[in-house]
Amino acid sequence: MIDQLIERIKKLKAPIVVGLDPNLAFVPDQIKEAAFKECGQTLEGAAEAIWQFNKGIVDAVGDLVPAVKPQIAMYEKFGIPGLEAFGKTVDYCRQKGLVVIGDIKRGDIGSTSEAYACGHIGPVCVGDQEFYGFREDAVTLNPYMGSDSVMPFIKKAKESGKGVFILVKTSNPSSGEFQDQELADGRRLFELVAGKVDEWGADSVGRYGYSEVGAVVGATYPEQAAIVRKLMPKAYILVPGYGAQGATAQDILPNFDENGLGAIVNSSRGIIAAYTKEKYKEDYGPEGFADAARAAVLDMREDIGSALERRQAAGK
Amino acid sequence: MIDQLIERIKKLKAPIVVGLDPNLAFVPDQIKEAAFKECGQTLEGAAEAIWQFNKGIVDAVGDLVPAVKPQIAMYEKFGIPGLEAFGKTVDYCRQKGLVVIGDIKRGDIGSTSEAYACGHIGPVCVGDQEFYGFREDAVTLNPYMGSDSVMPFIKKAKESGKGVFILVKTSNPSSGEFQDQELADGRRLFELVAGKVDEWGADSVGRYGYSEVGAVVGATYPEQAAIVRKLMPKAYILVPGYGAQGATAQDILPNFDENGLGAIVNSSRGIIAAYTKEKYKEDYGPEGFADAARAAVLDMREDIGSALERRQAAGK
Repeated sequence: MIDQLIERIKKLKAPIVVGLDPNLAFVPDQIKEAAFKECGQTLEGAAEAIWQFNKGIVDAVGDLVPAVKPQIAMYEKFGIPGLEAFGKTVDYCRQKGLVVIGDIKRGDIGSTSEAYACGHIGPVCVGDQEFYGFREDAVTLNPYMGSDSVMPFIKKAKESGKGVFILVKTSNPSSGEFQDQELADGRRLFELVAGKVDEWGADSVGRYGYSEVGAVVGATYPEQAAIVRKLMPKAYILVPGYGAQGATAQDILPNFDENGLGAIVNSSRGIIAAYTKEKYKEDYGPEGFADAARAAVLDMREDIGSALERRQAAGK
Repeated sequence: MIDQLIERIKKLKAPIVVGLDPNLAFVPDQIKEAAFKECGQTLEGAAEAIWQFNKGIVDAVGDLVPAVKPQIAMYEKFGIPGLEAFGKTVDYCRQKGLVVIGDIKRGDIGSTSEAYACGHIGPVCVGDQEFYGFREDAVTLNPYMGSDSVMPFIKKAKESGKGVFILVKTSNPSSGEFQDQELADGRRLFELVAGKVDEWGADSVGRYGYSEVGAVVGATYPEQAAIVRKLMPKAYILVPGYGAQGATAQDILPNFDENGLGAIVNSSRGIIAAYTKEKYKEDYGPEGFADAARAAVLDMREDIGSALERRQAAGK
C-alpha cells in the first residue's frame, strides 16, 4: 500500500486524501429526491443517496488525489443498506486507481482483531475458497488494547500488501484527556504509542523509507505532531482535522519530512460539502456540488503546496 | 437497559452473558454442510451457517441467561452477508427477551460517534422517518479519544433507554501496555479511565444504583478489578475472559458488589463451543452442540454462584 500511495502523492503533487463521510444533511436535494423516489424515504433510499453523491464526488476529484478515506460510521449508521453503499464506494474507488483507506478505527483481542482484518483487508476463507468482505487498501486502528490487538492487522497487511494507520494523537477537542497524560517517565501517552508504532512498523518498510504501519495525528495539534514525527520516522502520517475542524496548512507542516513526504492530509466536509461554503456557494450551488469539490481540492492542493514551498524556501 | 438487565440477572440468578462469537471453525459440520448446500461455499453460506448456529444456541440457553453479547467482528468478517446475520441475531435475541450487548468497541470524533450511535442503538432519521440500522440494547466503546467520543453514545443511550460499556481494563495479554501505564500523579491509565466512566455515568443511575454507563474489565486481571470496582461504584462491569481466556470464578469476584450484583460475566467459546471441550465432548458431540451449550451455562452458573456464596459466607 505505502509505496503505491507515495507514488501517487508524488505524481499528483497532492498529499491529500478526500474523506468520504457523506452526511445526508449535505447531500444535495436533487440527489436525495431521486434516491427517495427510487427506493423510498428509507434506509435504502438514504444509502442510494450517499452512494450517488460519492460517485459524483469521486468522478470529479479522482484524477487529482491519490486516496480517499470513507468513514464507515457514516454508512453503518444506515445499517445493511448503508454498509452496502460503503462496499460499493470502496470498490468503485479502487477501480479508479485510488488508494482506499477505510476509516474503521477497530481493535480488539487477538482472535477478534484477526476477524476484522479478514473482513476489511482480507481475504477471508470459507472452506478452501477466498473472499473479500470489504476490500480497503488500508484501515485505521485504535491502539488502546495494545500490541496483540494490532498485530493481527499488521500480519494480514503484510501478507496482502496492505497497510494500517494507528491512532496516536487524534484531532478531536478531548483527545488530550487520555492521550496527553504525562506518564511516570515524563513522556506523554501519545509519545509512548508513537514509539510502539515505530516498532510495529520496523519490518515492513517500503522503497521510500516508509512503513506499512502509519499513524493518525490530528492537524489540530501541531506541537504534538513535531514530537511524534521524530519518534516514528518510518510512519506515514494520516492527518485529519484540516479545514472543517479548524487546522490550517501551517498547522500540518510538522507532519511532513524535509522532502515534503511523510504525511497525507484529510479533508472531508471541506471538500465534499464545499458547495455549501461561502467561498464556493455562489459559483456552484447544489447542482454543481461535484465541481465545487474539485475546486476545493485544487485550492487545498495549492494551499498545502505553497506552505510546503515556503517552508522549503525558509530552509526549515 | 441497566434496570432490565439487573432484573433479569436477579430473576435468573445468573450474572452471565453468552458471547455469540461464532467462528466457522467451531460451527458443527452438519450446520455448515446444510448452509453451504443452500447458499454455496460463499460469504452467504458462511453467514447462513453462523446464523443457524446462533439460533440453535439461543434457543437452548435463552431461558437461562439474561443477556447475549454478539461480537460484531465475527460477522463483519463475512462482509454484508455476515452483517445481515449479525442484525438477524440481534433481533432474534431481543424477541426472546434477552438483553443484547453489541460488542462493537467503537469510538470516534463527536459527529462520527453520533453516526455510530444512530446505527447501533438508534434510531436513525431519514427525512422525517425513524429507522433502526442495527438494534442492540447496549454497546461496548473504546475510550482512547476521550469524552467527546463517548458522549454522543451516552446521550443517545439516555434518549433511547439503552446503555454502554466502556473499555477500562481489557482481558487480553497486552492490555497493560498502555492501560497499566503509571501516570505522573501515581495513578495508572485504567484508573483514570475508570474515574471518567464514573463521571460519565453520574446522570443515568437507575433504580438499583447502577448507571447506563458500564465498564469492561477483563476477568484475567482481578487485582485491577478490585481497584476499579471502588473507583466507579455506579458502573456495571461486563467481565470478559472467564473460561477460554483462562480466568476462574475466583478471579471475577472482585468485580461484584457485596450483594452479588455489579458485574456480568461473559463466556463465548466456553459455552458456544462447549461440545468441542473434553468435559462435554463425549456426552454431546457436534449434533448436541446446543445441549452442550446449555450444560455449560448451567455449570458456569453453578461455578459463579457458589464462588459468590463462599465469599458471602466468609463475610468478605
